[in-house]
Amino acid sequence: MSRDLLYELIEALTILPGVGKKSAQRMALFLLDKNKDGALHLAKTLEECLAAIQRCEICRQLTSETVCRICSDESRDSYSLCVVESPSDVLAIESTGGFKGRYFVLMGRLSPIDGVSPDDLGIPDLLRHIQGAKIEEVILATSSTVEGDATATFIKDHLEGVKVSRISYGIPIGGELEYVDGNTIARAIQGRIVI
Amino acid sequence: MSRDLLYELIEALTILPGVGKKSAQRMALFLLDKNKDGALHLAKTLEECLAAIQRCEICRQLTSETVCRICSDESRDSYSLCVVESPSDVLAIESTGGFKGRYFVLMGRLSPIDGVSPDDLGIPDLLRHIQGAKIEEVILATSSTVEGDATATFIKDHLEGVKVSRISYGIPIGGELEYVDGNTIARAIQGRIVI
Ligand SMILES: [Zn+2]
Ligand SMILES: [Zn+2]
Repeated sequence: MSRDLLYELIEALTILPGVGKKSAQRMALFLLDKNKDGALHLAKTLEECLAAIQRCEICRQLTSETVCRICSDESRDSYSLCVVESPSDVLAIESTGGFKGRYFVLMGRLSPIDGVSPDDLGIPDLLRHIQGAKIEEVILATSSTVEGDATATFIKDHLEGVKVSRISYGIPIGGELEYVDGNTIARAIQGRIVI
Repeated sequence: MSRDLLYELIEALTILPGVGKKSAQRMALFLLDKNKDGALHLAKTLEECLAAIQRCEICRQLTSETVCRICSDESRDSYSLCVVESPSDVLAIESTGGFKGRYFVLMGRLSPIDGVSPDDLGIPDLLRHIQGAKIEEVILATSSTVEGDATATFIKDHLEGVKVSRISYGIPIGGELEYVDGNTIARAIQGRIVI
């Protein structure tokens, strides 16, 4: 039996989240038959991105640069800082267009059981960052899970002289930000309450 | 604003069929954060496949080899030949596991209005191939559209001394093979009728 990369490509595509065998087949044939230029661009961009990907040295978001696009955007408001759990939360909030401040990505949430400590989440860096920069408001957008709430409370308890709010109504209890629609996220940010 | 390949990758992923902005974001972060090895393998395989992709010189299926995996598989029955419209139809029938013969991919269907002639579909090659090989049955699996039926009739009318059948009940009228579930396709192949 010949090697036939067509089948290897279909197999390779099934690693994508939400992509089964049938979708992978459709994608493979589309890439090879209908949009070769787009396919080549996708392959090259993925390779380049994998080689360059790192954490932004300011906010810890994934980026191909030393400083991410958001942190290096001078037009953004640097007085409010939104603290989130994961890179996808940044993209989810950005897609609403309703927030023009900066972010800090914890890359997780406090969990003594799983051994996730404040140090693991870069919280000391976060606290130093908040004192050092001229931030006036910290918006805690960690998830509405027990650990997400505990993480928010921990950060709030270690901050002084700065307004601290928690995003509020709209986000379903136990829900993950990345699966929530943009309007709900935008409303939750507008309706945040000082805690 | 920095270049930040993360956003270029998200954009590049939205060319995939069925993938919107939100899915593309999820895919990009998954590839860059959760499965870098799989991501690199995907990029390399896609590039290699794009450079090598061609039509099988026997059946016209897309393949990275001169002769595709199915045509070069000696264990398959070479007495029955299934004629389909597109590469995805081959994959759809293969996924049922119910057919062990060979294929011929027309890459379209007859359409005088759109200027698609028998020559464009390689039908002269197909007829020569059927006479030359020891094929006993030709299964016409073109779509149940007006053009698909006309294509099947045209091929049948140009064949002699060979059993010709048309896949039958199960395929919804006007339906495309690739969107039909495996059981329905398998039943349609079993229930084919000589025409
Ligand atoms: Zn950043
Ligand atoms: Zn072949």
